[in-house]
Amino acid sequence: MAIFTVQLKKVIDDSYPIEIGHHLENSLVTDVVQGMFGGIRKLAVITDDTVRPLYAAHIADLLTEAGFYTMIFSIPAGEKSKTREMKAKVEDEMLAAGYRRDCAVIAVGGGVVSDLAGFLAGTFARGVPFVNYATTLLAAADASVGGKTAVDTPLATNLIGLFNQPRKVYIDLATWQTLPKRQIYSGMAETIKHACMTDADFFAWLETHMQDILALDQTACEKMAKANCRIKYEVVMKDERESGLREILNLGHTVGRAIETVSGYWLLHGEAVSIGLVAAAILSEKMGHMTEADVLRLKKLLLAAHLPVKIPDFIDRRALVEKLYTDKKARNGQLRFVIPDGIGAIVPFGPDNYAIPVTEDQAREVINMM
Amino acid sequence: MAIFTVQLKKVIDDSYPIEIGHHLENSLVTDVVQGMFGGIRKLAVITDDTVRPLYAAHIADLLTEAGFYTMIFSIPAGEKSKTREMKAKVEDEMLAAGYRRDCAVIAVGGGVVSDLAGFLAGTFARGVPFVNYATTLLAAADASVGGKTAVDTPLATNLIGLFNQPRKVYIDLATWQTLPKRQIYSGMAETIKHACMTDADFFAWLETHMQDILALDQTACEKMAKANCRIKYEVVMKDERESGLREILNLGHTVGRAIETVSGYWLLHGEAVSIGLVAAAILSEKMGHMTEADVLRLKKLLLAAHLPVKIPDFIDRRALVEKLYTDKKARNGQLRFVIPDGIGAIVPFGPDNYAIPVTEDQAREVINMM
Repeated sequence: MAIFTVQLKKVIDDSYPIEIGHHLENSLVTDVVQGMFGGIRKLAVITDDTVRPLYAAHIADLLTEAGFYTMIFSIPAGEKSKTREMKAKVEDEMLAAGYRRDCAVIAVGGGVVSDLAGFLAGTFARGVPFVNYATTLLAAADASVGGKTAVDTPLATNLIGLFNQPRKVYIDLATWQTLPKRQIYSGMAETIKHACMTDADFFAWLETHMQDILALDQTACEKMAKANCRIKYEVVMKDERESGLREILNLGHTVGRAIETVSGYWLLHGEAVSIGLVAAAILSEKMGHMTEADVLRLKKLLLAAHLPVKIPDFIDRRALVEKLYTDKKARNGQLRFVIPDGIGAIVPFGPDNYAIPVTEDQAREVINMM
Repeated sequence: MAIFTVQLKKVIDDSYPIEIGHHLENSLVTDVVQGMFGGIRKLAVITDDTVRPLYAAHIADLLTEAGFYTMIFSIPAGEKSKTREMKAKVEDEMLAAGYRRDCAVIAVGGGVVSDLAGFLAGTFARGVPFVNYATTLLAAADASVGGKTAVDTPLATNLIGLFNQPRKVYIDLATWQTLPKRQIYSGMAETIKHACMTDADFFAWLETHMQDILALDQTACEKMAKANCRIKYEVVMKDERESGLREILNLGHTVGRAIETVSGYWLLHGEAVSIGLVAAAILSEKMGHMTEADVLRLKKLLLAAHLPVKIPDFIDRRALVEKLYTDKKARNGQLRFVIPDGIGAIVPFGPDNYAIPVTEDQAREVINMM
């Protein structure tokens, strides 16, 4: 018998910049030309059918003009495309087009595109550079910091994936102009979650600036995008592997993800999270961590962003309760929720733990009254 | 316009032990009980239908007796199981059985099982601990060091995957007793590759001890297993991300992988690599890097291990040449081979580069004469 030790201790620098501004296409091309993403020769622009004609085609043209072999790989828009099968389809198209390890993947789109493309880039030839050009408010709020990439499966959302940090993120605020209103509203849910979670001042600022934001005022949007990056960064930095603090980012997501799935993705992610935030707030009120006034403030802000605060009638409550058990935080058949502590804080549950055990009866009671 | 920098510099320690010996089942159970792989509660034993009754069922029983929720997920034996679809099938079975992030994956089997299970573990809930219990000579030679995991796709082998280091590797030499002779022989190909690549002394030792090894003499097998770990480790340590030196591990694999695919996996990986080693040696001889005597020594050692040194007649040479272009080392339509420099060394091609450009005519000439 013998033991052979493989020593693999090393310093890794996954740092990357997030550029926030209006019309960043040329900035992206300059970065590629200057070799910021390595000596790559082929670029795979991954996008969806909605974003393709609006932005991705133009970006691909600019990259081609700059001398790079560039092809667009487009998926149908929407959460339903975030599957292992769609990932395999794009992989096969890339392989058929001659893409190997000497390429980089550029996601141009929202959260679905960046989740899928980031996961794909992380496993293509065991990892090629990944660049994220975010064209939605939700992507700016949620997908730019943290390195989480994933696809959905029939049994669970976001459970198959990777931590894969992008080499750079571009948040192009000009692209929000073409977003359907419903997408803008949906994107606000993660922003409101961030504020409710850790930043009472930002919450108050949102209360007074919601109209500016929804009118896509440049200054307000830039300030909001930066605040989202900062808040998410502060949480993720303290806990990159999601062992403890990072769980607070799941605020509103236990019920939210379940509703999203049970609704057959009829509800957008942000809409589902909005309802989930209210569910968490009501649970918090029942546990004595939130006043009725604070619950109302939260509902009012969500309503100001045209977001739902009640579970739609067509949702089967029984199926919804059952679906809660597929939540990542559930352990040994025990439901766990992230619970707000008033506005701007989260209730801790022991050291490095923010997932509060909740009984099925408690969850069912809240769901049945919404 | 604003730039926000995400700072993600950190020290990562992926070090792990490889235990080499006879009958290591109890050692594995002790490690799990002592929390070596974290505070996990559920264990997923991934194996194949051949290894399941021989070893995996027993290991799962021991783990269950030790108080862990343990299930076996078995795939059909053979390279044909190393697909994205099989990975998805096992994922769905695990999800349906309630597996979430609080689990560890234990691969019990050969290279196909560890490649698939290692990739699966790396993307299940964005990464759960992975333990590799290797039951084949090939896995001992090839899959224990390096962290490479992958599946095959219709268009390329091993191109979708991850670098995912195991938490521990067990090389149970007792399991080799139940290996079919053909698997033992096939496993020798990677061992001979290692010797040919960097270690002339080990090559000479193999020449004098081949009979002991094939008779599974304990001392000889342990010495060989250790030498394989050491050689692969030395190469991988110097180049963990496969940017340069690590390419020498592809010796014999350019033609080898192509033959494996074109044969429809009728040839085992090691058998295909054996032919690939001879192809690389003949190329080397033609380039003036290897004597005819050395090529004969290599062929003789491969033949002593009952390995093929010629391309079988049923292989379509034209399809084989075409398939070479799907090799990972190929860039811009240029074939590249790792070329031995006599016995025990590799021909360098500039700094940190061991992939020598080879014309299609050169490759075709060698293939047509084999």
